[in-house]
Amino acid sequence: MDDQKINRTDIGELGEFGLIDRISSRFKLNRKDSLTGIGDDAAVLDYGGAPVIVTTDLLVEGIHFDLMYQPLKHLGYKAVIVNLSDICAMNAIPKHITVSIAISNRFSVEAIDELYEGIGMACNAYDVDLIGGDTTSSPKGLTISITAIGSVAADRIVYRSGAKPGDILCVTGDLGAAYLGLQILEREKQVYLAAPDMQPELSDKKYLIGRQLKPEARLESVRYFEKTGLLPTAMIDISDGLASDLMHICKASGTGAFIEEAHVPIHDEARTQAMEFRMDPITCALNGGEDYELLFTVSPKDLEKVRFMDSVYIIGEITPKSDGVTLHTSGGQILPITAQGWKHF
Amino acid sequence: MDDQKINRTDIGELGEFGLIDRISSRFKLNRKDSLTGIGDDAAVLDYGGAPVIVTTDLLVEGIHFDLMYQPLKHLGYKAVIVNLSDICAMNAIPKHITVSIAISNRFSVEAIDELYEGIGMACNAYDVDLIGGDTTSSPKGLTISITAIGSVAADRIVYRSGAKPGDILCVTGDLGAAYLGLQILEREKQVYLAAPDMQPELSDKKYLIGRQLKPEARLESVRYFEKTGLLPTAMIDISDGLASDLMHICKASGTGAFIEEAHVPIHDEARTQAMEFRMDPITCALNGGEDYELLFTVSPKDLEKVRFMDSVYIIGEITPKSDGVTLHTSGGQILPITAQGWKHF
Repeated sequence: MDDQKINRTDIGELGEFGLIDRISSRFKLNRKDSLTGIGDDAAVLDYGGAPVIVTTDLLVEGIHFDLMYQPLKHLGYKAVIVNLSDICAMNAIPKHITVSIAISNRFSVEAIDELYEGIGMACNAYDVDLIGGDTTSSPKGLTISITAIGSVAADRIVYRSGAKPGDILCVTGDLGAAYLGLQILEREKQVYLAAPDMQPELSDKKYLIGRQLKPEARLESVRYFEKTGLLPTAMIDISDGLASDLMHICKASGTGAFIEEAHVPIHDEARTQAMEFRMDPITCALNGGEDYELLFTVSPKDLEKVRFMDSVYIIGEITPKSDGVTLHTSGGQILPITAQGWKHF
Repeated sequence: MDDQKINRTDIGELGEFGLIDRISSRFKLNRKDSLTGIGDDAAVLDYGGAPVIVTTDLLVEGIHFDLMYQPLKHLGYKAVIVNLSDICAMNAIPKHITVSIAISNRFSVEAIDELYEGIGMACNAYDVDLIGGDTTSSPKGLTISITAIGSVAADRIVYRSGAKPGDILCVTGDLGAAYLGLQILEREKQVYLAAPDMQPELSDKKYLIGRQLKPEARLESVRYFEKTGLLPTAMIDISDGLASDLMHICKASGTGAFIEEAHVPIHDEARTQAMEFRMDPITCALNGGEDYELLFTVSPKDLEKVRFMDSVYIIGEITPKSDGVTLHTSGGQILPITAQGWKHF
């Protein structure tokens, strides 16, 4: 009649990754048509045609978003994007989504319309169909669960596990801005709560706030790879932060890596804002998360192809595992990188 | 900064089906590979091989389940089953699931283990692989979101929309028991809250409680259809109740239907319990829900094949739309059937 046990381990002791490891160790793939399960950005299934790529995400009010500063339309858009980004991270094209929501009765029908308007905008922008879902009430708050499905030719799927020492480490756009946008919104929320009449001055923060509230999935990079025949050796999308997501690639590939601090793309506004917050810009880029850029590795022979890509930055290199995962600072130091991961509990 | 609008419509005014209609009217299928979207038990997608059948469900603590009387292991099992049942309702074989959970820190790691043990038991029982998911914290309570994926040959998919006047209406098992099981558990919860030392006497209620806590999906019926070549003309799983789900078939098929009260299978324990609660057994069967039996229609020419099926009951017939949806009572009356639907808000 109760979930309290004599042997009680707090979830916080395990953390997200510990919990995922615990769950995935229990579930083995038994079916021949389950090509990849837990452990990459998406699962890969064989239904007789092109591989079916599946990913899912659960967004909870008060944990992943705050409706004080996140308009529902933007939230709907972003909720779709984070899933499409996972499909792109497998080098696949997203095609279909399901959207389930649980909502308390404090939300009006008009509010739900706004949420779905944002969902629809993302579907249109990425040529994705909404094909199902579930709607239910919730005792409190809003929860959004989205599953995205896509596909790609079997020989073009890119996993986290394919990086090799000597491979070049690349990223599709600047990092840290989404995190700094969140810090600004959090600060303005506190200001607003203290003095509701104050009008926030955010006009010079548009880029950072936009990166937080309205991220995009890097589908155009996947299409570029397809067009040019370039096949990354490993790929992941940066949702947790460069450090954490690079660690995922290194762990899956059994390698080390280094990042050149001077080469990590950081937007001017992000740099200025980090300084205003008395934060190190590279720390924001490494640990900020939610940038939804693709982090990928290519064989050195493909260096020229990467150089021709719009807004792709070469930020480091894959190394043997024994070298560890390190940051080569602009000052000439070599520092170990540790994943900060996710600590919601 | 707020979801309160000047034009504010309460969700309760629309209800679940109104809300689904509103959302689905906004989303058209634009892709050629989206064969069926919202409006059936599952979506049907073309990924080049066998059609990919997708369904998803969101279960929220305090709305769909009560941990006072629902052991986490059973909850995990049931959460999978309700999705597999939707795949079966398309006449398809479930193959893969994703499971996402949001949990508050009142849950221990051991509690999560129990939940996933139930999930694993359902996977094993139905030869389904868990291939992904998401785990996150929640400010309050437990939310479970499951997506199930399966497939079947294109010419064997069964929709809600294929029923024709003269078709025979069948159901795969007895109805109303899950609802009565829930009423017993609710009553015992109140007794327990009033007098925690009282030991409940539930040994003679096992069938009803089992139907509520540990439902099964009728995969063996789908396999029987496959083996015998019998193809239902329409099918749905009974999650909302016989009345509501029959109305879905009739609405989608553009038909009416009648049910013979005397032919609706009701378990002896359900009949006795309904009487004890001073309820009409047929009302429990019509409106109870959560039985997860398959309600299907077959052409009259297939009558003999249906007769040979284990535990299949012929309960009525499809009629022209103008005849409406009616109950032929044991007393000889003809009563209109109305869908009660779902009113969580």
